[in-house]
Amino acid sequence: MATFVFCSLNRTAQNAARRSLSSHLPRLAGAAQPLCSAHSPALTLRWLSRGTRFRSQGTPGSSAARATRRGALALGGAAAVTAAAAVAGFLANANHFQRAEMATRVSTAVEEKEEGDILERCRGFMSPPVTDIAVLQGSKAEMRTRMEMLIMETQAEFCRALQEVDGGTFKVDRWDRKEGGGGISCVMQDGKVFEKAGVNVSVVFGNLTEEAARQMRSRGKVLKGKDGKLPFCAMGVSSVIHPKNPHIPTVHFNYRYFEIEEEDGTKQWWFGGGTDLTPVYINKEDAFHFHNTLKEACDKHHPQYYPDYKKWCDRYFYIRHRGETRGIGGIFFDDLDSPTQEEAFNFVKSCAQTVVPCYLPIVYKHLNDAFTDEEKDWQQVRRGRYVEFNLVYDRGVKFGLATPGSRIESILMSLPLTARWEYMHEPAKGTQEAEMLEVLRNPKEWV
Amino acid sequence: MATFVFCSLNRTAQNAARRSLSSHLPRLAGAAQPLCSAHSPALTLRWLSRGTRFRSQGTPGSSAARATRRGALALGGAAAVTAAAAVAGFLANANHFQRAEMATRVSTAVEEKEEGDILERCRGFMSPPVTDIAVLQGSKAEMRTRMEMLIMETQAEFCRALQEVDGGTFKVDRWDRKEGGGGISCVMQDGKVFEKAGVNVSVVFGNLTEEAARQMRSRGKVLKGKDGKLPFCAMGVSSVIHPKNPHIPTVHFNYRYFEIEEEDGTKQWWFGGGTDLTPVYINKEDAFHFHNTLKEACDKHHPQYYPDYKKWCDRYFYIRHRGETRGIGGIFFDDLDSPTQEEAFNFVKSCAQTVVPCYLPIVYKHLNDAFTDEEKDWQQVRRGRYVEFNLVYDRGVKFGLATPGSRIESILMSLPLTARWEYMHEPAKGTQEAEMLEVLRNPKEWV
Repeated sequence: MATFVFCSLNRTAQNAARRSLSSHLPRLAGAAQPLCSAHSPALTLRWLSRGTRFRSQGTPGSSAARATRRGALALGGAAAVTAAAAVAGFLANANHFQRAEMATRVSTAVEEKEEGDILERCRGFMSPPVTDIAVLQGSKAEMRTRMEMLIMETQAEFCRALQEVDGGTFKVDRWDRKEGGGGISCVMQDGKVFEKAGVNVSVVFGNLTEEAARQMRSRGKVLKGKDGKLPFCAMGVSSVIHPKNPHIPTVHFNYRYFEIEEEDGTKQWWFGGGTDLTPVYINKEDAFHFHNTLKEACDKHHPQYYPDYKKWCDRYFYIRHRGETRGIGGIFFDDLDSPTQEEAFNFVKSCAQTVVPCYLPIVYKHLNDAFTDEEKDWQQVRRGRYVEFNLVYDRGVKFGLATPGSRIESILMSLPLTARWEYMHEPAKGTQEAEMLEVLRNPKEWV
Repeated sequence: MATFVFCSLNRTAQNAARRSLSSHLPRLAGAAQPLCSAHSPALTLRWLSRGTRFRSQGTPGSSAARATRRGALALGGAAAVTAAAAVAGFLANANHFQRAEMATRVSTAVEEKEEGDILERCRGFMSPPVTDIAVLQGSKAEMRTRMEMLIMETQAEFCRALQEVDGGTFKVDRWDRKEGGGGISCVMQDGKVFEKAGVNVSVVFGNLTEEAARQMRSRGKVLKGKDGKLPFCAMGVSSVIHPKNPHIPTVHFNYRYFEIEEEDGTKQWWFGGGTDLTPVYINKEDAFHFHNTLKEACDKHHPQYYPDYKKWCDRYFYIRHRGETRGIGGIFFDDLDSPTQEEAFNFVKSCAQTVVPCYLPIVYKHLNDAFTDEEKDWQQVRRGRYVEFNLVYDRGVKFGLATPGSRIESILMSLPLTARWEYMHEPAKGTQEAEMLEVLRNPKEWV
């Protein structure tokens, strides 16, 4: 059944007009499977009570054993996992980048269901959404709901793709924020492929002071609240993946949405986000693939998006005290509130759907690369720089650490499992390590 | 000859009245050896040109081989190393804390030479001092000179004690600051006992803006400059030692002096500093020894110093986002400008001289403690917290990273060689790890 789901989708996709690689992330195939058409509040409750089941998916094992389990899971209703697994299996003989392209086409048919039934879509998530499903169903057309569905889908999509390649399982933690809202943290630690992989969703709301509201917006716009207080809602999906093999780069992405209500009832809203890559060694083919995939996603929306957001990314992920960027960049943007909310959302959706095709082909390509102790050491030194950036400069981390009631473990899950600081580390001239540093000191155009 | 130097000092010390353990750090024995009584500018230059020789001291090897080399070095003028080595050898059969007490008594006779000849005292340093020796000789009575001599001596003292126990050698780097002054960084990495040991001296001067001057002082006193600029001089010795064995704690200390000249020519000055311990596991005997040694040094100067500065230390080394202190504290103070400059300096000197007797006995005691992989992992998790404190909260690090022209490698040498971040790490109840956390969450009185 799993294979059927995949094949039928695949044929649909193959017959579809060629679309750009970046426009389709394998949307949750689970949503296409009408496992249950009823979605009364009672059912929602029953569904919610099954939340812990999500933790048991994707346990390590041989590929064949996993395939068997997958079949069972598909019957049990987790068709999303199934489809992703089938895609990976079917494409085993294609080269890595072809594989990614095909995988993205596969999901095209499913993507058309974006505005499909909320309950059905929720079935593919790593956990029930933060907001009650009944509430989401009653506000389907609102941006808050659409964005929460998108970030939940992005989390599930990415986690499953990573579980598939690693064989390990994400630990899923739901947490509540006393002041309003909560989140879902998915972490896989010390896996076969990934040293530490974290994919976090948060949906928080409450009241901000005018000062805090101003700080949340990078342009520092003045906002007028009722008695100095502004009701707000902030949500996002963020992820950092640190692989074990030094030839597989670290990836980070974050897509977020803010809403703030001013004194007169008008709503200010904006989007932010980005995806960036931090390799330990330069691989030009990987760098091209990563940036080009992002560029194609951006170009569908505005020709200036990629060049502008690529520059912004290089500026943002800059370790000033080292005179180095954190990695080879990607895209980064904030305060996006134009041209319309609909178009801004569509752009963010394209970006979020680009995460898997940006990264997974690179992971598969280097999965079995041999590496030396020296290469591992250099990876650990670069991990140290990653920690420096995250703790010293990252606005999200700083904001999180300074905010009472934050869930520290979710904020700091971006830190690697292991890192290293060697005094006066400077690679010898002409080495691959020196080549990497050169790029970090002088960011390049990759496309 | 080496042994003779030691024995004669030892007898002198043994005959001296019993003094408190904390009051005497083995002052550089080298200063007692009149290797050359001339100190013309020409000689100073010749001496300075030998600066690199300092790097060749204390190479690893067997104890016997080291003793032989030490003899040769003593003839070459490095009697400080020699005396320390002899003390360690002689005291091999004493228990750890007795050994420390005896070692401190040994140096009593030498200590009396504090205001001895500048050139002679410089011979024992890890490198020629930052300020030209001729300049120091011409300003012997000034606090700047006395403090620079103290921090250079503290560096040499501590480095040699660590080399002695490790068998490794400190790498000595002299660096200049374009805007004025410079420093001497001594780092030993991946030694037999120490994962990373850094002992840094810096002496910097130039002009501060009024705002920067205010920030340097924790009470934020307003200072009036000429055209908004204030000539300043800042100097200090700081050190962080991360041992390999999880049963040997990390230690940190820092002693510093500031001078700022106001518009009308009056000089504002103050001292700051502290010594604190970060164990991986609680050992009450070690904690008592460490705190009691500090308390005795403080009590000689003011009965309120220890209780006040112990509390300040617990407050300062607090990782707010974790709700934990960094370690079990010690003492910390800043803005010390009373009762007189002389008495404040004497207090700082007592503290600096307490570093070796505070720490080395604990190192020797646990030198051969067995440890498990789990204990090593817990050490690595605690190292991660150390990194968090240093990068997120430490005022010195933040100031350094934000100051153009800072020597980043010297600022970040406090970071451990390796660290670890495990998602949701929480020790099981009743374990030694849980006992450690309990103390970090609820600081204790140890004396």
